[in-house]
Amino acid sequence: MLKIPPHQVAGHQAGNGKLGPLVDESGRFYKPLQGDERGSNELKFYTSFSSNSRILEHISKFFPTFYGTQLIEASDGSGLKPHLVLEDLSVGRVNPSIVDIKMGSRTWAPEASEEYIQKCLKKDRETSSLPLGFRLSGIQIYGNRESGYWKPERTSMQNLPAEEVKLILKKFVSSNTSTDMDLQPDCAFAATVYGGSTGILSQLLEMKAWFEDQTMYHFYSCSILIMFEKGLALEGQNPGGQIKLIDFAHVIEGRGVIDHNFLGGLCSLIKFISEILTDPNEHKSLVSSVNGVN
Amino acid sequence: MLKIPPHQVAGHQAGNGKLGPLVDESGRFYKPLQGDERGSNELKFYTSFSSNSRILEHISKFFPTFYGTQLIEASDGSGLKPHLVLEDLSVGRVNPSIVDIKMGSRTWAPEASEEYIQKCLKKDRETSSLPLGFRLSGIQIYGNRESGYWKPERTSMQNLPAEEVKLILKKFVSSNTSTDMDLQPDCAFAATVYGGSTGILSQLLEMKAWFEDQTMYHFYSCSILIMFEKGLALEGQNPGGQIKLIDFAHVIEGRGVIDHNFLGGLCSLIKFISEILTDPNEHKSLVSSVNGVN
Repeated sequence: MLKIPPHQVAGHQAGNGKLGPLVDESGRFYKPLQGDERGSNELKFYTSFSSNSRILEHISKFFPTFYGTQLIEASDGSGLKPHLVLEDLSVGRVNPSIVDIKMGSRTWAPEASEEYIQKCLKKDRETSSLPLGFRLSGIQIYGNRESGYWKPERTSMQNLPAEEVKLILKKFVSSNTSTDMDLQPDCAFAATVYGGSTGILSQLLEMKAWFEDQTMYHFYSCSILIMFEKGLALEGQNPGGQIKLIDFAHVIEGRGVIDHNFLGGLCSLIKFISEILTDPNEHKSLVSSVNGVN
Repeated sequence: MLKIPPHQVAGHQAGNGKLGPLVDESGRFYKPLQGDERGSNELKFYTSFSSNSRILEHISKFFPTFYGTQLIEASDGSGLKPHLVLEDLSVGRVNPSIVDIKMGSRTWAPEASEEYIQKCLKKDRETSSLPLGFRLSGIQIYGNRESGYWKPERTSMQNLPAEEVKLILKKFVSSNTSTDMDLQPDCAFAATVYGGSTGILSQLLEMKAWFEDQTMYHFYSCSILIMFEKGLALEGQNPGGQIKLIDFAHVIEGRGVIDHNFLGGLCSLIKFISEILTDPNEHKSLVSSVNGVN
């Protein structure tokens, strides 16, 4: 009854005797509780957040629903292990296009251990995190029935310069099939996926307004998932564009200060999406447009 | 004719044979060009910015006017040295209250030297920069004719926790004289200095809108000055609240990405100012309000 999630694009993955999340047919997602403080911290966050009366529905909708914890057979065959029971975000989706974006130019909290800080700092400096305020952690783009998904190596996505990240975010909403991903993206679905009153940009702006105000949580090393159904877009229907926040093993208390690290990265992502919407067919390189100011 | 600026609260200061900026009576501020790449970089920025046709007046007003460079007698007696010639921001001010806020949780650019990065990173971690997204670099608060200025040690301002920073930003707009700064601040001038359609918050929001959009410059290690005249406020007149950006030795090209590091810190500062305006007499500690969410 439990199976490996078919649409995971980043994070630990089950299969081949490895420990990873599982899903069932009732729409629940079972995430193994990491044995160290990451597990207890993520559980602490979900427990706090799900019972926090100050979180209203227009914000809680961006988070997976939390159903507690449960002992289930771990995917690596190691027996019964505690799992977080969460909403399976891919329920109802047939061929979702998904991008996982790890937020913040800094993925470490000030109070983390020195060893952890040095490890994260090194990775932040080697990837897009430092220059862009976020990095692409994984992606799958649906092409069509014949070509299936375009799903590049996760590590190849993490350290792209701005213009390459923009190109990927254009490909994400283009009609190109997975076999012609090298062609110029046509941004055919930019307006219906990123744009509109319920589109991705609108959702990101709603999330931004919350981050400008909330001082309860700082979300280090967490990801925004952007999802939609290209199949629906191809049929001229609403493609169901949706954003979700995931991965809360490094959330800490905000202590009266906004999460300026997450917010800065979010504003940077918003700028990328806005530019694609404003000028989907811009072909000139970003470098040449910047040279004009000097 | 040249003299030491009377209202400098941070940065290198002239006097006692040291090299520092000078002012003249015509309203010009002479800043020694630092001999290393900091000097050439700051000159490069002013030259680029002052000739950038994409910078409109509603943004350029936040920057000191640039009048080129000039060889003048250096304040340390070392003879003729090149200086940046800038607008003297204190012209027309009688007894200005001034706070210098170094922006960004990170004061170093990704492409800086390893030695410089390690030096800045250490300081960012030891001060408020990392947790708050900015740090107080210096302050003077006018009391009244008898008590003069309250001007605490600059180093004592840099590593304050959130609730102390908030207290200082309250004292900044209170009627307390410099001899009763230990008393609870009354925030008597919060509404007239921070609030209103031309007040500090309004100016910060105008600056924020620009930072959400501009991808030309990244402003590492630069400061926002907030200034006003308490004397005018005491007389019920417009206290002339004004913000200015200064110190551009570490500005780099934005290369198509917004300055998410500066912007995050700016949003954090805006949140502090907003809270003081909304609830100037809030006495409960920030910690207790946060505890409510767990």
